Amino acid sequence: MAKVALLFSTGTEECEALNVVDILRRAGMEVSIISISGDRKVTGSHDITIIADELIEEHSFEEDDVLVIPGGMPGTNIIEANELAQKAIKTVSDKGKFVCAICAAPKVLGHGAYLVGRNACIYPGMDDELTGAKVNHEEVNVDGKFITSRGLGTAIPFALTIIEQLQGKEAADNMAAKIVFRQ
Amino acid sequence: MAKVALLFSTGTEECEALNVVDILRRAGMEVSIISISGDRKVTGSHDITIIADELIEEHSFEEDDVLVIPGGMPGTNIIEANELAQKAIKTVSDKGKFVCAICAAPKVLGHGAYLVGRNACIYPGMDDELTGAKVNHEEVNVDGKFITSRGLGTAIPFALTIIEQLQGKEAADNMAAKIVFRQ
Repeated sequence: MAKVALLFSTGTEECEALNVVDILRRAGMEVSIISISGDRKVTGSHDITIIADELIEEHSFEEDDVLVIPGGMPGTNIIEANELAQKAIKTVSDKGKFVCAICAAPKVLGHGAYLVGRNACIYPGMDDELTGAKVNHEEVNVDGKFITSRGLGTAIPFALTIIEQLQGKEAADNMAAKIVFRQ
Repeated sequence: MAKVALLFSTGTEECEALNVVDILRRAGMEVSIISISGDRKVTGSHDITIIADELIEEHSFEEDDVLVIPGGMPGTNIIEANELAQKAIKTVSDKGKFVCAICAAPKVLGHGAYLVGRNACIYPGMDDELTGAKVNHEEVNVDGKFITSRGLGTAIPFALTIIEQLQGKEAADNMAAKIVFRQ
């Protein structure tokens, strides 16, 4: 069972995070919502409060197959400024596992020079944040182990792409049918 | 500012609920997540725990412009069996305001004979639950003040349709662009 770590901050776009949690759990993955805000109770950018599964201080990231960074403001900036979040990205990336970011969050990877020479996308108007990347406006990009996507409206294809990468196209297509996505 | 009441139960499909909360709040509506489970802390069908804004016992529904019923199991069945939830549907419907249901939840309206003669849709395989309705397999149906939709994969179009009904097509189109939905 693949292990997925999803970062959640004060000011995270709740549904960019939770659509991924929901759909990957439906696919049988072990998904942990990890608060970077020092409290498991966290309020996102649209005043939705959730209870995270763990604090970032409690999670090593050594065993994760996938790291997911949702967007939203100020959540993305808070994640970018968080040393443990940066360390998590490095840990997962160094192990050759998937690092996935959506909406404004690909800028965290861009600024960290993780996307140099790679196909990638980000929220409209932020292309310049993807340092050295081959930026396009597709809903989702997969390049090596980096998956990027553009906003709340692309969160479901983003989640389905993660399933496709880990479990294959048939599993992703079956999930799309089960949730009545573009049927 | 339109007032929206969204029911949330133990076992509710979290993102069928929260995509709507998120997008309608972005549109400036006053959205209240209303727990029907006796506690503001509620866990949905995919183990995501949220803090609701109110308990159903605290909310009158007399002033609401929109009532939203998300799906998920066992959440839908718990909502259907809840007397205060049934009373809420009757209150909002009697006042001629919008009653909206997604995934399995349109069955609550079907069983209550709210959809007789109306165009409506529901999660695949459940058409027979929509007593007397003209059932189709569109992503979203609007018939009078009843809006129905089919699953997590149609939650964003469902939310955008609610915006279109209350604020017009341009507002819905602007929101779709803002969240990068089908751009």
